[in-house]
Amino acid sequence: MTNPSISRETLAAADAADPLAGFRDEFDLPENILYFDGNSLGPLPRGTAARMEQAITQEWGRDLIGSWNSHDWINLPSRVGDKIARCIGAAPGEVVAADSTSVNLFKLLMAALRLRPGRKTILTETGNFPTDLYVAQGVCDLLGDGHELRRVPGDEITASIDDDVALVLVTHVNYQTGAMHSLVDITQAAHDAGALMLWDLSHSAGAVPVVLNLVDADFAVGCGYKFLNGGPGAPAFLFVASRLQDDIAPPLSGWMGHEAPFEFADDYRPAPGITRNLCGTPSVLGLTALEAGLDLFLTADMMEIRRKSLALADQFMTLVATRCAGQGIVIATPRADTRRGSQVSLRHENAYPIMQALIARGVIGDFRAPDTLRFGMAPLYVRHVDIWDAVEHLRDIIETGDWDRPEFHARSAVT
Amino acid sequence: MTNPSISRETLAAADAADPLAGFRDEFDLPENILYFDGNSLGPLPRGTAARMEQAITQEWGRDLIGSWNSHDWINLPSRVGDKIARCIGAAPGEVVAADSTSVNLFKLLMAALRLRPGRKTILTETGNFPTDLYVAQGVCDLLGDGHELRRVPGDEITASIDDDVALVLVTHVNYQTGAMHSLVDITQAAHDAGALMLWDLSHSAGAVPVVLNLVDADFAVGCGYKFLNGGPGAPAFLFVASRLQDDIAPPLSGWMGHEAPFEFADDYRPAPGITRNLCGTPSVLGLTALEAGLDLFLTADMMEIRRKSLALADQFMTLVATRCAGQGIVIATPRADTRRGSQVSLRHENAYPIMQALIARGVIGDFRAPDTLRFGMAPLYVRHVDIWDAVEHLRDIIETGDWDRPEFHARSAVT
Repeated sequence: MTNPSISRETLAAADAADPLAGFRDEFDLPENILYFDGNSLGPLPRGTAARMEQAITQEWGRDLIGSWNSHDWINLPSRVGDKIARCIGAAPGEVVAADSTSVNLFKLLMAALRLRPGRKTILTETGNFPTDLYVAQGVCDLLGDGHELRRVPGDEITASIDDDVALVLVTHVNYQTGAMHSLVDITQAAHDAGALMLWDLSHSAGAVPVVLNLVDADFAVGCGYKFLNGGPGAPAFLFVASRLQDDIAPPLSGWMGHEAPFEFADDYRPAPGITRNLCGTPSVLGLTALEAGLDLFLTADMMEIRRKSLALADQFMTLVATRCAGQGIVIATPRADTRRGSQVSLRHENAYPIMQALIARGVIGDFRAPDTLRFGMAPLYVRHVDIWDAVEHLRDIIETGDWDRPEFHARSAVT
Repeated sequence: MTNPSISRETLAAADAADPLAGFRDEFDLPENILYFDGNSLGPLPRGTAARMEQAITQEWGRDLIGSWNSHDWINLPSRVGDKIARCIGAAPGEVVAADSTSVNLFKLLMAALRLRPGRKTILTETGNFPTDLYVAQGVCDLLGDGHELRRVPGDEITASIDDDVALVLVTHVNYQTGAMHSLVDITQAAHDAGALMLWDLSHSAGAVPVVLNLVDADFAVGCGYKFLNGGPGAPAFLFVASRLQDDIAPPLSGWMGHEAPFEFADDYRPAPGITRNLCGTPSVLGLTALEAGLDLFLTADMMEIRRKSLALADQFMTLVATRCAGQGIVIATPRADTRRGSQVSLRHENAYPIMQALIARGVIGDFRAPDTLRFGMAPLYVRHVDIWDAVEHLRDIIETGDWDRPEFHARSAVT
């Protein structure tokens, strides 16, 4: 629902009444910036720096190799996985934190295809996040034998699942537009056609309620460094429904997925349950930072997060539509609550320099080629008044032509 | 060479004359422990804690997403890789730091087999580190098509390379015994037979001089958390000789190996050079800690490290042979300098409780099933007198039967 009578005062009142308002102080955010990029890199939780110092100076520095036992490093992937499970509607023992999203995609794509040997197609969405496409292409190349990745527009996925589809690979919330698919509809359609379902939750975990077990999902992967605030390059996660776990033949059969790694046996025997999906030695420092982020996140109520996220995005879209009317901005994110995640994407022909101008004013969103400005709505630290201020800067930058300075056109290595 | 006149005084004199002695103060080692487990987890360099705090509170906390550019996070895998290259006789642009050793093994095993399509055998050593065996088994299972992993004793490797061998996979220094293979002999034999060569340098990088380019090696992987002191679960590395880089078809074709990741193109195009072997988003925190360890390591002279490592191990073996004679200890590490790495392994029927008794006295080595005690000789912080003290504890523990207490028989999750 849109609210045409929105003002900075009504937004300040919303902040005053916000049950999540206290969480902002739990993050070590710089003064004078408005951070709308938690969909790309979540900010530093205040507790994380102290937790990391403890892990580095005490666990590593003092207790050294003994910390694998005394600080239970060995179970970090499972322990952190169980905490992520609570964010995505999975049960304990169904998630591990390890490796990158890309590596985990490879593991589960390969495992899934082995479970549907007669079928040759991975079905995905046109415009899915590139690494999903690239890894799936790599898997098809590797297997040869007629395997192919088929891309269809998002609204044609369910109708496109034919009896050659082994696996449907969909990102729940699209990185470019913020559009959200129906977990239940696509999972059901995949199963009705005899296919398996792999959800990429990179833009959903911690952003929107996810109910993997309620929709009977098979597989999922996702990212630790966005809405879960796990730190730059945090370990990713993977989910395998418990009913499928013992059928998985791990393609990356490293020692940490072995039934008894410290037996140092010559032959690989996969561990029972989810841990067979581990591969190499876990990133203790990365997992520690991720756990600190989760420990904060799990004190918040996911339903409150979703309510506020929808409100923030709705206010943002309303203000853009009214206060930036006629400035060439197209709102790329669906307006319906059930069809959007926790970001707003705007398209504009000068998106790149406009975003640089915003960043120069301390309004931190990001740009995605060719013409998208993204604004992540992370309710734990974004305030309602931030929405007003961000849109006012956006309006001013476009109206005054402030974006058209040479320094705002210069391209960086990472956009 | 052995020295029968060795005493604590001669060892103290060796410490006084040791050109590496000053490095011990660069590590934050606890008082009252003798650390012989740098072959499993290197200790904390003093500079690392401050470097990590800076990365966490400043780069992540203050500069947030902009750090991908302003702190050059995006080039961490290559920058750290170039520093590792200096430790292993490789050139800039031939190494990247990423993922785990196990994942990197998978990448290069798969890439190598694709370069020798007519050959079906991976040849390795019986008793190679389990993850090498497991990952190679997994690769053979995945490819099917008659691929197999063949294991032969270490001294039969060169003679066993026939024209079905696509790839020889050998760990340079054996984790169990500390025995070291000849880089030049095995690489040459592999090439003579038309096979490719993949060295696992997990127990060599930072431990012994490695000259990959001098021996014309093709591929290598290795570990960041042992002698390079990169921290628990540090990112691993991989090496591809520059002459082969553009022939690699990366099986884990994630977005960070793309020619232009921030173009967000739909189709995978591998990056030129070594970076095509990257997969997912790099572990910024893990790479930062690893870089801090390398920055310290690279201030030492590798030839001095080798000289001292050989001396420490020689003193240790001599003292064990003389002062622990008749106690059932077998020295499993070769005595010849050219045949050993930087650890000493002892075998004893009561190895497990003996090691627990040593650890209880602050002598930190480790146990490897079924009957090995391992002592890593890391010349940057192990002193010559530590050798004397460790052997005296070992002698006393066995002579007095102090090892045979119930608490020393209790098994931990990680041995």
